[in-house]
Amino acid sequence: MAGGFEGHFAGPAFEPGTVWLVGAGPGDPGLLTLHALHALHQADVIVHDALVSDDILSMARHGAELVFAGKRGGKPSHNQRDISLTLVELARRGKRVLRLKGGDPFVFGRGGEEALTLNAHGVPFRVVPGISAGLGGLAYAGIPLTHRGINQAVAFLTGHDASGKVPDAEDWKALAQGSPVLVIYMAMKHWALIRERLLAAGRGGDEPVAFIRNATLPDQQVLETTLEASLADLERSGLEPPSIVVVGKAVSMRAGLDWLGALEGRVLDPDPLDERGKQDAG
Amino acid sequence: MAGGFEGHFAGPAFEPGTVWLVGAGPGDPGLLTLHALHALHQADVIVHDALVSDDILSMARHGAELVFAGKRGGKPSHNQRDISLTLVELARRGKRVLRLKGGDPFVFGRGGEEALTLNAHGVPFRVVPGISAGLGGLAYAGIPLTHRGINQAVAFLTGHDASGKVPDAEDWKALAQGSPVLVIYMAMKHWALIRERLLAAGRGGDEPVAFIRNATLPDQQVLETTLEASLADLERSGLEPPSIVVVGKAVSMRAGLDWLGALEGRVLDPDPLDERGKQDAG
Repeated sequence: MAGGFEGHFAGPAFEPGTVWLVGAGPGDPGLLTLHALHALHQADVIVHDALVSDDILSMARHGAELVFAGKRGGKPSHNQRDISLTLVELARRGKRVLRLKGGDPFVFGRGGEEALTLNAHGVPFRVVPGISAGLGGLAYAGIPLTHRGINQAVAFLTGHDASGKVPDAEDWKALAQGSPVLVIYMAMKHWALIRERLLAAGRGGDEPVAFIRNATLPDQQVLETTLEASLADLERSGLEPPSIVVVGKAVSMRAGLDWLGALEGRVLDPDPLDERGKQDAG
Repeated sequence: MAGGFEGHFAGPAFEPGTVWLVGAGPGDPGLLTLHALHALHQADVIVHDALVSDDILSMARHGAELVFAGKRGGKPSHNQRDISLTLVELARRGKRVLRLKGGDPFVFGRGGEEALTLNAHGVPFRVVPGISAGLGGLAYAGIPLTHRGINQAVAFLTGHDASGKVPDAEDWKALAQGSPVLVIYMAMKHWALIRERLLAAGRGGDEPVAFIRNATLPDQQVLETTLEASLADLERSGLEPPSIVVVGKAVSMRAGLDWLGALEGRVLDPDPLDERGKQDAG
C-alpha cells in the first residue's frame, strides 16, 4: 500500500469554535468519506445519532468527548432545537464540534435546520455530505437506482414526516405515477397505508418491492416481495424498522446484481431484466 | 492525528481477477470513501471516466495502469459494451480491476449494465457506492435536498437518456407535480425544452432554480435564477455543461446555508425560509 491516508490527502483545517455537519453514511465504516474520517481525527466533541455505529465512533481521536443526541426506540429523546443549541454552546466554548449523522445530513437528516440555527447564532459551519442509506443500501442489495430500460428518474420519499404523519395522498399519486422507482425512508410503521396509496395510484400489485434492513452492515437483511404480498410478507418476516423500502422493477435486477450474495455463494441470473420482462408481460 | 487510515480501517481484500465498480464522488477528493481509497491503493488497473479528477487518480498505487474510458466533449469516445468487455478481459488476465466512475455507479452511471456483463462472463465484482453529484453538489452549494416545511420527497432525473432524447413529457408532468424539489442531471443541453415542460406541468415561473457546475471542486460555480429567467440567465452566464440543476424552493435556503460562500465572507441570511415565504405569498 503506497503511503497512508495522511500521505495523500490534506483536508481543510477543522477550526476551534466551528461545527462540521457530517454524514457518516449508512453504516459500513468503509463508506465514510475522507473528510468524515479527518473530522473524526480532529474533533474535540462528537454529537452523534443512534444510527452512527460503534465501529465508526471508535475511529474518533482518543480523548474526544462523545455526546449522544439521537432517538431510542423510534422516539426522539432529544428535542431538535436543544440539539442545535447544544452545538452552538459547544462551539462558543471553542470546541471543534463534529455533528455526525447517519446517512447524509441533507437527506431526511434535518441538517438544514441545525445549520440555520448555527448561522442565526453566528457559528461558522461546514457541511460534509455522506452516502445516504438510499444510495448505499441499494448498492449493497444489488439494486441499481437507475438502469437503462427501467427508469430515468428515481424519487426519495419519507414514509412519515417529523410529526409522524404520512405525507398527503395527492403527492403520493403524482410521485407514484412519475417515478418508476421509489425509495422510501421510514416507511415500515405506516406500510399498510403507503402500500394502499401506491396501489390506488396505479402501481401494480405484482411490482417488486424490497425492504433493506441494517443496510451495508454485516447483518444486512433484504426482504424481496411484491406490492401485493408485501404486507403479509413483512409481518411474517418479523423484520424490524428502520429499513429502506424500494418499489419498482429495479428490484428485479437484484437477481443478477446481488454481489454480496454472490460472494457468499448465490448463483446470479445472467439476464435478470429480460427474464423479468417476459414474466411481467405474461 | 491519532493513527492513520490503515490503523483504523481494514477494507475487504481486493482479489486478483475481480472488478470493483466504485463511485469516486462528485470531484472533491475528500468525498472519496475509505473503500474507494483502499481500492485506489490496491488496484492493478484503473478504468476511469473523464469526470474522475487528476487529484483523485494521483492517489492510485504507484505503477497502477490507468485506462481512460470516458467521454470527450459530451460524446462517447468509448462504446459501453467495449468498456464492459475490457473489464472482463482485464479480470481474466488476473488483474485487480478498479472501474472508477464519477459520482455513484448506480445513479445515471450505467454501473448496472457493466455489472451485468461481468456477471454474464462469470467475473466476480463488488459495488462501492459514491456520493452522487446531486447529493454532493447540493451540499456544497448550501441547498438541502430535503428540509422541513419545504419537501418530503426529492426526485433525481436525467435531462436526456443514453440516446440523447429528453424523457417523455407525461413523466415530467407527474414528477413535476409530485416532487417539490427536482434534481436534474445532464439538463443543460435541452434546458429550453425541460423548462417549458416544467412550466407546462404547473411549476411557477418565479420558482428558484440553481445550476451547479464543477460541484465540490475549488472552481465550483453556482448560478441562482428562477424558472422564468433561467434560459436567458443561463445564456448570459456562459456556464458550460456539465452542471447539476435544482428546481424548487430548497434553492432559496442557499441564502442562509451557503457555508462555502460564508467561509469566503458572504453574509448569510439568518432566516431565509421565512423571508422567501413572505415573498412567495405576495
